[in-house]
Amino acid sequence: MDNDQMKTYLQAIIAKTPFAAQLEAQVLHIEPGKVELAVPVVPERVNQHHGFVHGAIIGFVADSACAWAAGSVAGDVVTSEYKLNFLAPAVGERLIGVGTVIKASSRTVVAQAEVFAERRGERKLVAVALATIAKVEGK
Amino acid sequence: MDNDQMKTYLQAIIAKTPFAAQLEAQVLHIEPGKVELAVPVVPERVNQHHGFVHGAIIGFVADSACAWAAGSVAGDVVTSEYKLNFLAPAVGERLIGVGTVIKASSRTVVAQAEVFAERRGERKLVAVALATIAKVEGK
Amino acid sequence: MDNDQMKTYLQAIIAKTPFAAQLEAQVLHIEPGKVELAVPVVPERVNQHHGFVHGAIIGFVADSACAWAAGSVAGDVVTSEYKLNFLAPAVGERLIGVGTVIKASSRTVVAQAEVFAERRGERKLVAVALATIAKVEGK
Amino acid sequence: MDNDQMKTYLQAIIAKTPFAAQLEAQVLHIEPGKVELAVPVVPERVNQHHGFVHGAIIGFVADSACAWAAGSVAGDVVTSEYKLNFLAPAVGERLIGVGTVIKASSRTVVAQAEVFAERRGERKLVAVALATIAKVEGK
Repeated sequence: MDNDQMKTYLQAIIAKTPFAAQLEAQVLHIEPGKVELAVPVVPERVNQHHGFVHGAIIGFVADSACAWAAGSVAGDVVTSEYKLNFLAPAVGERLIGVGTVIKASSRTVVAQAEVFAERRGERKLVAVALATIAKVEGK
Repeated sequence: MDNDQMKTYLQAIIAKTPFAAQLEAQVLHIEPGKVELAVPVVPERVNQHHGFVHGAIIGFVADSACAWAAGSVAGDVVTSEYKLNFLAPAVGERLIGVGTVIKASSRTVVAQAEVFAERRGERKLVAVALATIAKVEGK
Repeated sequence: MDNDQMKTYLQAIIAKTPFAAQLEAQVLHIEPGKVELAVPVVPERVNQHHGFVHGAIIGFVADSACAWAAGSVAGDVVTSEYKLNFLAPAVGERLIGVGTVIKASSRTVVAQAEVFAERRGERKLVAVALATIAKVEGK
Repeated sequence: MDNDQMKTYLQAIIAKTPFAAQLEAQVLHIEPGKVELAVPVVPERVNQHHGFVHGAIIGFVADSACAWAAGSVAGDVVTSEYKLNFLAPAVGERLIGVGTVIKASSRTVVAQAEVFAERRGERKLVAVALATIAKVEGK
């Protein structure tokens, strides 16, 4: 698959994933080892009680960025574990996740993610993550 | 606050938290240092494309269990970071999160969570987390 | 192997591991899914500049507790990743690590560890860890 | 303090830290938000039983890189927690740790580290870490 085919393929999986489709998650860019995705901030859907984006949505963006970056080099994958550090409250029009593969091995991929809140075109780093993504066995 | 007051207080915060309210998160039990919560599995809302509960919902349950357990001993808190290990696909009628305080210090609380998928009354462990929760600075 | 044989086997591996042998790491107890180990606190060898045990030694105890517990159910293993929370300064005569398997899957084991500082027979919890341990690929 | 003074100051702390001094840890470079350190690979001191550098030494390098980078912007600090992913066996003449501050807040610093094994002048990435470093409370 070239990058455009990967993007189409991934966007089709999102459409079949109720939780991701409901959030209107969108692939902005994908290439082997790298992915960029966006989730619009619809307050009544994604916020917590102080008016910031809920941590679970930030977790979704971070995990997806890591897993989709891993999938771009390893095919069918599933997240084994991740660690997420929150850096600042997330406010803005949309969240951007940038996932990057650090190392792909025979069974697992280690990837990292940065999550940004985008406000009037400016991106502020709001979280970082480090994850282990497992290739799905056999077939 | 006694345990019943804490439960009422926390349930009121959930009601004001769009993302949590939408998931119908419910406090089952709270006491100092311990909390148990439930999220019903409504597939078209919380699933991923293989028919399991999406990792972001498991992350929500794990993070909430840690943060609410921390809040039960430390008042107003916010999650600094957590690590989450997925153990098994989550299938069932509801997710249960059990959060336990490991250590409360002057500024932070370290807590752990277990996430179970409950199916016909049986609980299966599907994820574990370890988190650092920060007390919100004085007012 | 029964528990005594596992203990002898593991102690023999420690003897061949320069870093562990030098620390005089000792297996106190091992059974399937559980291990307890000790490292004596020799200040000029393991301390940092405030007189507490250095975090790297606590990391050694935590990682070893997880990996050895995993090895007790999965054979030859190697640590993929761990997360370690420091809870209190470690002071005492020895460090104790207790490792417990949370879940053993076909390729990986998730385990947790508690690290205690033992002083005049009393144990104080000084760190907790959550780890992913990989089985070494087939032979 | 300028960069040279920070380097001298940090090297003096290492000299007073038994575990770090014994490993001959050396500051290669420090500037606000960034540090590079080296630990020579002396096999009978730092290896495990397969002839690779022991994970605890890699943990020391990763933790030190994060904590020292944090200290370069925040003064007196202590590690709260870190997560470490091992990527490849470490073989070579020395380990290099590169620590970078991601975000400095009023009470904590989030930092990341890369650990390389250097062999005949070539660096291979063997581990990555993500850490929360706490400022030591006021005096």
